[in-house]
Amino acid sequence: MKTGTIGIIGGMGPLATADLFQKIIQNTRASCDQEHLHILIDNNTAIPDRTAALLHGGADPFPQMLESALRLEEDGADCLLMPCNTAHYFHGQLQERVHIPLLNMLELTCQALKRRGITRAGLLATTGTIETGIYQRAAQKLQVELLLPTPEEQTWVMDLIYQGVKAGDPNCDPKRVQCVIDRLLTQRGAQAVILGCTELPLAVQMYRIQAPCVDPTLELAKGAIRQAGGVLCRQD
Amino acid sequence: MKTGTIGIIGGMGPLATADLFQKIIQNTRASCDQEHLHILIDNNTAIPDRTAALLHGGADPFPQMLESALRLEEDGADCLLMPCNTAHYFHGQLQERVHIPLLNMLELTCQALKRRGITRAGLLATTGTIETGIYQRAAQKLQVELLLPTPEEQTWVMDLIYQGVKAGDPNCDPKRVQCVIDRLLTQRGAQAVILGCTELPLAVQMYRIQAPCVDPTLELAKGAIRQAGGVLCRQD
Repeated sequence: MKTGTIGIIGGMGPLATADLFQKIIQNTRASCDQEHLHILIDNNTAIPDRTAALLHGGADPFPQMLESALRLEEDGADCLLMPCNTAHYFHGQLQERVHIPLLNMLELTCQALKRRGITRAGLLATTGTIETGIYQRAAQKLQVELLLPTPEEQTWVMDLIYQGVKAGDPNCDPKRVQCVIDRLLTQRGAQAVILGCTELPLAVQMYRIQAPCVDPTLELAKGAIRQAGGVLCRQD
Repeated sequence: MKTGTIGIIGGMGPLATADLFQKIIQNTRASCDQEHLHILIDNNTAIPDRTAALLHGGADPFPQMLESALRLEEDGADCLLMPCNTAHYFHGQLQERVHIPLLNMLELTCQALKRRGITRAGLLATTGTIETGIYQRAAQKLQVELLLPTPEEQTWVMDLIYQGVKAGDPNCDPKRVQCVIDRLLTQRGAQAVILGCTELPLAVQMYRIQAPCVDPTLELAKGAIRQAGGVLCRQD
């Protein structure tokens, strides 16, 4: 069967884009190069910061996101991915401007929670993602309850994302975020924690944070393999 | 300063492409997404196997390589990279068909050897790379002597590349390749070993192979950052 071409609107951030790329490859059943999927990536670092735009009047990221989407579509992509949770605020608006499906990482994540019987999950994400309510809406559709960090805890999550992963600092201290996770799980009854910013699966690995996690980047990778007609290494 | 766009002719293999992408990001000095470089990747898995073409009459990879190169140039790339050592057999032919520089991973690697005072290095690579003499020619220009595995040892290197990394098998046994490396270093006087197939830096990591190595993927990543006007994390 002819498989489809996956297009990735990347650069939000670059390491998260590489992480998605790697997760697609590692989760595709293939015994040689030629059995892997055709993937086009635009690591477009000219896209302005999403949280800054949504909350603090920063430059609008939509024009650059659209430019990448159109370039990928023009180059033959059959579906599009956006490895940035916050960017999904623009999902509907962007989907309207292209003729190929733009997969929704937030919906794929909530579907994964549902499949695993998780009805109450903690959400770690950027302040942009949390304040716009985009995850809450995706979760509500599937009757999954989301627990959010307190405002103080939220600043710790943002520090880990921006001063840690995005700044490429391997020595950033993860203790406070580990504490947020522990509170969500033990005091507030979350069954798992959504790593709802694509830098967070990297942070968990880099800083050895321990938690029962749901990784939206991995769910997006698996959704993309299915969409493109590839074969998953493991079904779930 | 406005930095340039890097184009990557990928898929040879996919994991090696992701490895190059990651090494460019990790070696770029940047404190936020927007300070990273613009990178376009065509993970073109329709490119046929290079060694099969060069040695066993397999399908010609050049037309698909050219298609990717032209697509990346058309999309605005200012330079091109090819994270596949064997594919460099076609370097001259491909460079003639595009108007932007196609960086030469083999030359960058030999220059790195020279800078480190290495005048005798072992070469681990595909049989296609070895039999076409492409590394030997790059090394000769800089008066670096290359030591090659014996024909039997070469089959072990190929097994690790094809049955290990390209087939995505985490349990492939690295003992025989470790033995090849040890012989090159202790019996034959190599000062270091060139991991001259882009799957080999991955193999070294996956299978915990120990050796003083020169990683052509890393040299290509650093060459690309310099070419695009980015800032390296560390000079060398």
